[in-house]
Amino acid sequence: MANNNQKIPYKIYLSENEIPKTWYNVRADMKNKPAPLLNPGTLQPMTAEELSAVFCEELVAQELDNENAYIPIPEEIQSFYKMYRPSPLVRAYCLEEKLQTPAHIYYKFEGNNTSGSHKLNSAVPQAYYAKKQGLKGVTTETGAGQWGTALSMACSYFDLDCKVYMVKVSYEQKPFRREVMRTYGASVTPSPSDTTQVGRKILAEHPGTTGSLGCAISEAVEVAVTNPGYRYVLGSVLNQVLLHQSVIGLETKAALDKYGVKADMIIGCAGGGSNLGGLIAPFMGEKLRGEADYRIIAVEPSSCPSFTRGVYAYDFCDTGMVCPLAKMYTLGSDFIPAPNHAGGLRYHGMSPVLSQLYDDGLMEAVSVKQTEVFEAAEMFARVEGILPAPESSHAIRVAIDEALKCKETGEAKNIVFGLTGTGYFDMVAYEKYHDGLMTDYVPTDEELDVFRAKLPKV
Amino acid sequence: MANNNQKIPYKIYLSENEIPKTWYNVRADMKNKPAPLLNPGTLQPMTAEELSAVFCEELVAQELDNENAYIPIPEEIQSFYKMYRPSPLVRAYCLEEKLQTPAHIYYKFEGNNTSGSHKLNSAVPQAYYAKKQGLKGVTTETGAGQWGTALSMACSYFDLDCKVYMVKVSYEQKPFRREVMRTYGASVTPSPSDTTQVGRKILAEHPGTTGSLGCAISEAVEVAVTNPGYRYVLGSVLNQVLLHQSVIGLETKAALDKYGVKADMIIGCAGGGSNLGGLIAPFMGEKLRGEADYRIIAVEPSSCPSFTRGVYAYDFCDTGMVCPLAKMYTLGSDFIPAPNHAGGLRYHGMSPVLSQLYDDGLMEAVSVKQTEVFEAAEMFARVEGILPAPESSHAIRVAIDEALKCKETGEAKNIVFGLTGTGYFDMVAYEKYHDGLMTDYVPTDEELDVFRAKLPKV
Repeated sequence: MANNNQKIPYKIYLSENEIPKTWYNVRADMKNKPAPLLNPGTLQPMTAEELSAVFCEELVAQELDNENAYIPIPEEIQSFYKMYRPSPLVRAYCLEEKLQTPAHIYYKFEGNNTSGSHKLNSAVPQAYYAKKQGLKGVTTETGAGQWGTALSMACSYFDLDCKVYMVKVSYEQKPFRREVMRTYGASVTPSPSDTTQVGRKILAEHPGTTGSLGCAISEAVEVAVTNPGYRYVLGSVLNQVLLHQSVIGLETKAALDKYGVKADMIIGCAGGGSNLGGLIAPFMGEKLRGEADYRIIAVEPSSCPSFTRGVYAYDFCDTGMVCPLAKMYTLGSDFIPAPNHAGGLRYHGMSPVLSQLYDDGLMEAVSVKQTEVFEAAEMFARVEGILPAPESSHAIRVAIDEALKCKETGEAKNIVFGLTGTGYFDMVAYEKYHDGLMTDYVPTDEELDVFRAKLPKV
Repeated sequence: MANNNQKIPYKIYLSENEIPKTWYNVRADMKNKPAPLLNPGTLQPMTAEELSAVFCEELVAQELDNENAYIPIPEEIQSFYKMYRPSPLVRAYCLEEKLQTPAHIYYKFEGNNTSGSHKLNSAVPQAYYAKKQGLKGVTTETGAGQWGTALSMACSYFDLDCKVYMVKVSYEQKPFRREVMRTYGASVTPSPSDTTQVGRKILAEHPGTTGSLGCAISEAVEVAVTNPGYRYVLGSVLNQVLLHQSVIGLETKAALDKYGVKADMIIGCAGGGSNLGGLIAPFMGEKLRGEADYRIIAVEPSSCPSFTRGVYAYDFCDTGMVCPLAKMYTLGSDFIPAPNHAGGLRYHGMSPVLSQLYDDGLMEAVSVKQTEVFEAAEMFARVEGILPAPESSHAIRVAIDEALKCKETGEAKNIVFGLTGTGYFDMVAYEKYHDGLMTDYVPTDEELDVFRAKLPKV
């Protein structure tokens, strides 16, 4: 751990010209590369040509690129990044005092943009490359709505049509997110819908279903591949997304380096892995190259524990099974967290890059219960001022736990965590917590076995 | 107007040690001081002693101080400010390009904190001085909820009890704001309520009323003066509030000076005047001292036009008439904007400081219709990325109009406006606008005459 006598400000802001000009591709430094996506029909690795029916070309190239460590960020994307980046790295002085810990706590705050989260970092390049390819528009799915909001912002900026399939239960319960997307000119359809074949099929089989992310993905993909001039974009899981999100980690590392601070551990919440993969990228790179060592900790909800209780296997990315297969830590593509789960991070699988790194023992994972998460969220809000998203609060929980361990041992460790977003649209969950109505749920092994048994045989 | 060849970044961030260490009190430089508050019983100027029954002592001193131009910001307040300040001064490159205007547009963005607006700048000192005086807690009213949220954050930080009376219609229609306040430990009561004498009286006279700001003020004041260890705090209108809000203007001026930019005009929305008064303070100071000239423009809704169609007279600050009388531009303390008004800024009166400056011809005022305001809001959101609060969008509207005038004349004027907050909790209003259900309302002279006739005879 670094000793540092220089007074560190509450917020470390890089200057505009210190915003990264290249993304960092951690795959280039991985000895064991992430497993390739498979064609669900042939079970052979997806070729660039096959992928180009779904994704735009430049993104396909990025998806398949396991070699180049640094990929230039085009000027136009840099200009957009300048509207909301660099994001601050905050020294959590008030939280440290509240906990009476000798640890130094830092968080990279990605919530200060209208999408309310880090999702914009990948929405911007995905919209940019689609525009550059001369496409008319893009389709996507969204659950809570952060990704859909981010994409609608990016499409508005680059003048692209944007069709969002929003999980029906969120569409109905989160009308405000829907209106933000409409403000940016996106069309928002509740999923499952009767606008697609797969949607009609799901509706026929499960009338009255409130939808799922996997089902919305299937609809968005179908619309993309059946409408000329459209492609599908995805906000997490994919290699390209982690690549774009590396701006988070690169800025974090640059800010720490500026003050001579060496992180001891880096903590991030993990749903599909976009934030975590981006935050840890340059640190993991140093670790892979043997230049430095860090503890890297993924935090997931105990009600959707893909890392800690999933299996590392090829699985479908979507319910409709129209997408390629990905090798990942997964609970099974039919798995849906219990209805009492309010804390986000509800995807059944995990980024193939992170899955490989985890399988190689290069990072840890821990699962936490949602009442403990909201307890940490409220404490954090009260002392640090920022109202955190439930997702982000998973990382807060573990950062607090680690800081309390330091209090016991007297160690002044440097704890860095990702604060991915704000909770302004999650007040229903906070209300549940305030009213004592929030409960915890941990699936039994027997319950998980049901979904494991349905994994595709690859 | 300044010629400036230095490349100006998208966001000008001051460093932490450039956050102002004193507030600037524009009253010290005013030749005609704002008229004093009057005791509603005796019609004599309120003494410090009388005011101290309602407000805490240090704030009474600030309220009455017309002499000292610079008032030191205590260390503890500076520490809190460092959690969310300095706020960025943004160069609106994308908006300029969209408008194809030669004008240079800047906005001071105060929305990047959990209260979502500039209100925190005054909530922090008001809570701090209450704590310093050894009080148990404070009471206040809130309409849309920005002020209540800001105050609950500040009270949580300084460990003070916080009782918020929230206009009933907002309490019911904005449950999320209420939950944010609860997250920070505040108690929130819908107003009018049966917890106060004045509330019971109003309920008896107007059963089924959805409440008003003036009525919530009356309740909050009653609770403060009847509970030992409590004082009342207010988020706008008062001299002390404008003083605290001068951090906005001081930072804005410092950021412009850093790049040698001389503002030609400064534009702010005006409800009670807290943001506008703070934003313009140092510029107005230069103007008052004859050091520089600026156009200063207040923007208000045409449905609540206190500057442009009110009268400059002594009036009650609250419906229950328990507060001191203030001399201000007012529509009458019973005035409530038409039910179709969704754009905020609904207070019947205007800060005495700004009222005096306006009466002396030192600033302009313009009123705008809400559909034009939301049109500007949506355009701004799409090009600048930030989803603005309806209140802030009044200033956006006029900034755009002025930039379009520059397009006609070819002048590269420097336009500075205040972007006071974000619209995340205002999506119901945006939805109305998207669905074409938003209408405009401009009260007739006859309607305004009804309220004018009821002004107290002072």
